[in-house]
Amino acid sequence: MFSFDYKYRVRYADVDQMGYMYYGHYARLYEIGRVESLRSLGIRYRDFEDLGFIMPVYENKSRYISPAKYDELVTIRVILNKIPKARIVFNYEILSEEGVIIHNGETTLVFVNTANNRIITCPKNIEVALKPFFEAS
Amino acid sequence: MFSFDYKYRVRYADVDQMGYMYYGHYARLYEIGRVESLRSLGIRYRDFEDLGFIMPVYENKSRYISPAKYDELVTIRVILNKIPKARIVFNYEILSEEGVIIHNGETTLVFVNTANNRIITCPKNIEVALKPFFEAS
Amino acid sequence: MFSFDYKYRVRYADVDQMGYMYYGHYARLYEIGRVESLRSLGIRYRDFEDLGFIMPVYENKSRYISPAKYDELVTIRVILNKIPKARIVFNYEILSEEGVIIHNGETTLVFVNTANNRIITCPKNIEVALKPFFEAS
Amino acid sequence: MFSFDYKYRVRYADVDQMGYMYYGHYARLYEIGRVESLRSLGIRYRDFEDLGFIMPVYENKSRYISPAKYDELVTIRVILNKIPKARIVFNYEILSEEGVIIHNGETTLVFVNTANNRIITCPKNIEVALKPFFEAS
Repeated sequence: MFSFDYKYRVRYADVDQMGYMYYGHYARLYEIGRVESLRSLGIRYRDFEDLGFIMPVYENKSRYISPAKYDELVTIRVILNKIPKARIVFNYEILSEEGVIIHNGETTLVFVNTANNRIITCPKNIEVALKPFFEAS
Repeated sequence: MFSFDYKYRVRYADVDQMGYMYYGHYARLYEIGRVESLRSLGIRYRDFEDLGFIMPVYENKSRYISPAKYDELVTIRVILNKIPKARIVFNYEILSEEGVIIHNGETTLVFVNTANNRIITCPKNIEVALKPFFEAS
Repeated sequence: MFSFDYKYRVRYADVDQMGYMYYGHYARLYEIGRVESLRSLGIRYRDFEDLGFIMPVYENKSRYISPAKYDELVTIRVILNKIPKARIVFNYEILSEEGVIIHNGETTLVFVNTANNRIITCPKNIEVALKPFFEAS
Repeated sequence: MFSFDYKYRVRYADVDQMGYMYYGHYARLYEIGRVESLRSLGIRYRDFEDLGFIMPVYENKSRYISPAKYDELVTIRVILNKIPKARIVFNYEILSEEGVIIHNGETTLVFVNTANNRIITCPKNIEVALKPFFEAS
């Protein structure tokens, strides 16, 4: 299992008139979690696009347990439960400032070669970087 | 079954550097679909909040089949498959300008009384307005 | 002078915890106003980009008189005070549901040829479409 | 003069199909700059709202010199040129990853007492915290 934590400050731009983070803005937190977890492995998504690959989102799921509030410093926890093959599945837990899980999410992405617009399997460098986290100890 | 269609023009603000609508912005389309479908039944969500009720999102699911593109005039189709009780489940289909389903979504919301912050069942006026669509013919 | 009105419904996604439209979201309304005013003249900005031109924003100014509120059906009024040459200057007035001006804005854009990334003067079709509005009567 | 720097990573959610940060999203960077510069002085805007004050935006100006690009780690530089009285004027410079100024902004905010919805002068704690930066040396 691979797990990665990243802090995010909830902004005025994120919050609705209930005083809660707008339900559509969690996708931004997921994106930040994905990109920063890959960066922690030495993989920059921007290089990935420069090499002619994109990772379109195929599926996204969110469960809202408690709201994130204005100026709260939440934790985005990114979890990968298995080595990606045709798809990569990111799981997320959002933790409140007090460390309580207030939100769960899951995003499934595919890998596409922009040259011919075809779906490919997970690029080697991502697989290699993730492998040590999934080896029997 | 209750079904309602609403047109939405994809804006520059919605589109990412792949030229696709950003995956997090579909939630805005769902919101528009929900609010406008209720308005078509004579129910304004803003009155609802003024009466001391809110409808927080409990769960949200999205499937991205094909991307919505810049300036495309998509159709947001809102579908209710049953009369809401403790929860209300909105299903969505997003149709491209050519009328092809390019996206599916589902949002589950609950009803909360803001006076005591407790979950309540579906307000009568929503139930009454929806009933005719679910009667045996 | 060229003037064009377009209706916009303020969404939950637009409003902050003061219950006001977030100050950064007026830029979206300006964009909608620009694109729809051009469409009313038979010019689609998307065709424009397909032909190899873009219109980056050079300057933007906003004055917030009174807030736009949730679910309010505001009017975006787009005004062009002169025929564009090197730059195009869009002025905006946002009117409340009661018809009161609650906001002013101004955006200056330039024209860029994407082939060589150079600034050009206003394309002929925009100038021609606007000319009748600026002729002496 | 008071000056404060804060780093911001440009996200996929921020970038449009030109590959540039969408012109309306700079307002989010300004907000982050304002709030974090105040935090550096020991002032939390959220406490401010809890005490019954809000700071609505009165005016906003942006000049776009060069675009901020996807995944770029820009610097938000916040500058206060004088001690606020009836209004507070924040100036901003956005610097590219290479340290070049690519954007200028300016936001004027007022202070409002939410109890009676009236405009007030700058609260004492903000004035006191800023004073040392404006004293003759």
